[in-house]
Amino acid sequence: MIKIAVDAMGGDYAPKEQVEGAMIAIKKIPDIEITLYGDEVEIRKYLTNEERITIVQSEGVIDMGEKDPIRAIRGNRQSSMALALSSVRNKENDAIVSSGATQALIAGAHILVGRLKAMKRTAIAPLIPRVDGRNTILLDAGGNLETKPEYMLQQATFAAVYAKEIMGEDPKVGLINIGTEPGKGRAIDKEVFDLFSETKNFEFVGNIEPKQVLDAPCNILISDGFTANIVMKTIEGTAKGIGKMLKQELTKGFIGKIGALLSKGNLNRFKYRLAPEEIGGAMIYGLKGVVVKAQGSSKSNGFYNGIRQAALIVRNDVLGKVQSILESDVK
Amino acid sequence: MIKIAVDAMGGDYAPKEQVEGAMIAIKKIPDIEITLYGDEVEIRKYLTNEERITIVQSEGVIDMGEKDPIRAIRGNRQSSMALALSSVRNKENDAIVSSGATQALIAGAHILVGRLKAMKRTAIAPLIPRVDGRNTILLDAGGNLETKPEYMLQQATFAAVYAKEIMGEDPKVGLINIGTEPGKGRAIDKEVFDLFSETKNFEFVGNIEPKQVLDAPCNILISDGFTANIVMKTIEGTAKGIGKMLKQELTKGFIGKIGALLSKGNLNRFKYRLAPEEIGGAMIYGLKGVVVKAQGSSKSNGFYNGIRQAALIVRNDVLGKVQSILESDVK
Repeated sequence: MIKIAVDAMGGDYAPKEQVEGAMIAIKKIPDIEITLYGDEVEIRKYLTNEERITIVQSEGVIDMGEKDPIRAIRGNRQSSMALALSSVRNKENDAIVSSGATQALIAGAHILVGRLKAMKRTAIAPLIPRVDGRNTILLDAGGNLETKPEYMLQQATFAAVYAKEIMGEDPKVGLINIGTEPGKGRAIDKEVFDLFSETKNFEFVGNIEPKQVLDAPCNILISDGFTANIVMKTIEGTAKGIGKMLKQELTKGFIGKIGALLSKGNLNRFKYRLAPEEIGGAMIYGLKGVVVKAQGSSKSNGFYNGIRQAALIVRNDVLGKVQSILESDVK
Repeated sequence: MIKIAVDAMGGDYAPKEQVEGAMIAIKKIPDIEITLYGDEVEIRKYLTNEERITIVQSEGVIDMGEKDPIRAIRGNRQSSMALALSSVRNKENDAIVSSGATQALIAGAHILVGRLKAMKRTAIAPLIPRVDGRNTILLDAGGNLETKPEYMLQQATFAAVYAKEIMGEDPKVGLINIGTEPGKGRAIDKEVFDLFSETKNFEFVGNIEPKQVLDAPCNILISDGFTANIVMKTIEGTAKGIGKMLKQELTKGFIGKIGALLSKGNLNRFKYRLAPEEIGGAMIYGLKGVVVKAQGSSKSNGFYNGIRQAALIVRNDVLGKVQSILESDVK
C-alpha cells in the first residue's frame, strides 16, 4: 500500500474539495491509503466514505496569503501542513499532497522533510500545457534567486527521471534563452550550456527561445528561478488576457453571437486544456520525501490529480532513481 | 516637412511592402517626404506614384539572418540600411524606418547615428497589446544584458515622454517582478524599485507580476534586457500556441465547425489585435535621431504604421523633450 498524507485544510476551497478529491482517489486507485490532516469536525461534513481513509486532528492553518511563511510554519507545528509534512519525514506516509500556500510548503518541506543530500537546492516544477496535448516541465518556477550551473544540472536530472518514469517520455532538456545559437545569454546561461552539453544524464537540445514555449522540441525547460518564474507568470498572464480578448471579440455582432454559442462546447474544452489544475500538481524536487503542490484553487478533480501523481511518483521510485544517478555523478 | 528615410531593402517582403507602405503614408500624411534607400530597378517595379518620394541607389543588403550584425553594417556602408541611417546623422532626414535585421539596426544606429549624451544605453521598446485595446511599452526588449538602475531610469524616462506625446496617456511605470511586494526580486530589482520610488520623471506603480502582462495598471513595463526579451518572447509563444490550440478545439465536431465558421470574422479580428505589426514599430531609444524598427514580416499596412509613428515622434519633438528632462536630472 502507498500511503499518502493530505493537507486537508490548505487551499481556497479547503477542506471540501480536498476531502472529495481524496474520496475520488480511493475509488480510482486501489493500492493507496490516505490520511487527512485537518479539523475532524470540518472534514466529517464532507467525508461520506471512510474506506482506507484516516483523519488526524490538527490545530490551526497556514494562511494562503501568509507574508512570512517560514515563521508561520515554524510557529504552527500542529497545523495540518506541518503535521502532514512531518508524517513523511517519520515514514508514516510516503508522500504529501497540499494545495496550501506555496512558499510555506517549500519552507516547511525544507525544515520538516529535509533535503536530499545529492541535491543542493530544491526546485518547484509545474507542468505547462503543449500544443500537441502533452506537457512540459518548467524549472525552477519557485523563484529561487540564487543558483549555480551544478544546481541546475541536478534539477534537470531530477526532471529527466520524472519525464521518463511519470510522463513515459524520452527526456529532452532545453535551456530558456534569448536566442538559439550557442553563446547566447548571460554568463550563467553560457556555463549551463557547456555543462549540459557534456552530461550523460539526459539529452540536451540546446537554447530554446520562449517563442516556442508551448511547442518546444523538448519536455523539460529550465532557467534560473527568477527567469522561469517570470516565464510561468507571463504564460498565465497572456492566456488570461487572450481569453478576455477572445470573449470580447467573439460576442460581437449577431452572427458572431450565434457562432460563439455553437462554439461553446469547444471553447470550454479549450479553457479546460489551459487550466493548470487539470494537469495535476507541481512536484517539489530535492526533498527526502515526495511533496506535491496542488493549485491553491484546486477543485476535487484537480486535487485528485495531485494524489494520483504523488502515488505514481512513489510507485515508480523516482526519488531512488534520482539519487542513484546523482550519487554516481559525484564519484 | 518631416523627412523620413525608408530602408526599402530590409524585411521579409522587401522592397514590395516597404514601397507600398511608403505610398500609403504619402497619401495619408500630408506633411512628410520620403526617401527610399534601395535598388532603384527593384523599387520601380512597385512604385506607382512618386509624389514626395525620392529614390537613393544603394549597394547590397544586410541579410535578415546575419550572424555578425556589427561586422555586416561596418562592411556594407553602401547598404540600404547604412545609407538610410547615415542620412539621419547628416540631418538629410529626421527619422528612419527599417524592417531589417534588429541587431544590425541597433548596431548600425549606434555607429552611424550615435547615442544621445544623456542616455548611457540604447533600448528597444516594442508595444504589446492590452485587453482594453490600448498598448503597453515593454523595455528593454533588445536583450541588452548589462544594465544598471540609472540606465533603466533613463529608459523609463524616455518611455514616459513617449507615452505622453505619442500615445496621449499619463505615463505609469511598472517594474516586472516575481512578486508585488516591495523587496521582491534580485538585487537589481530592489535598487530599481528604490530609485524609481524617488524619481519625479514619471509615476511609479511598483512591482508588477507578469500574470498581469496584458492588463497591468501601467502603460510602461520595464526590466533588464534579458528578462524583458524573455517576457516578449513568452507572450509571442503563448499567443501562437494558444492560437493553434484554439484552432484544434474549435473545429471539433459538426456543431463546432458551424460555430467556428460563423465566428470566423470575429476570430480574424481577434488575430488582428494580437498581430504585432498592426501596432506599428518598436522605437530604439537613446539615439541622436528617430529610429523605428518595423517588424521583419511587415506588410504594407504595418510598414505604413511604422512611418506614421516615426513622423509623430518627430512632430512632437520626443527627443528634445527627453533630453531636457535627462539633462536637468544630471544637474
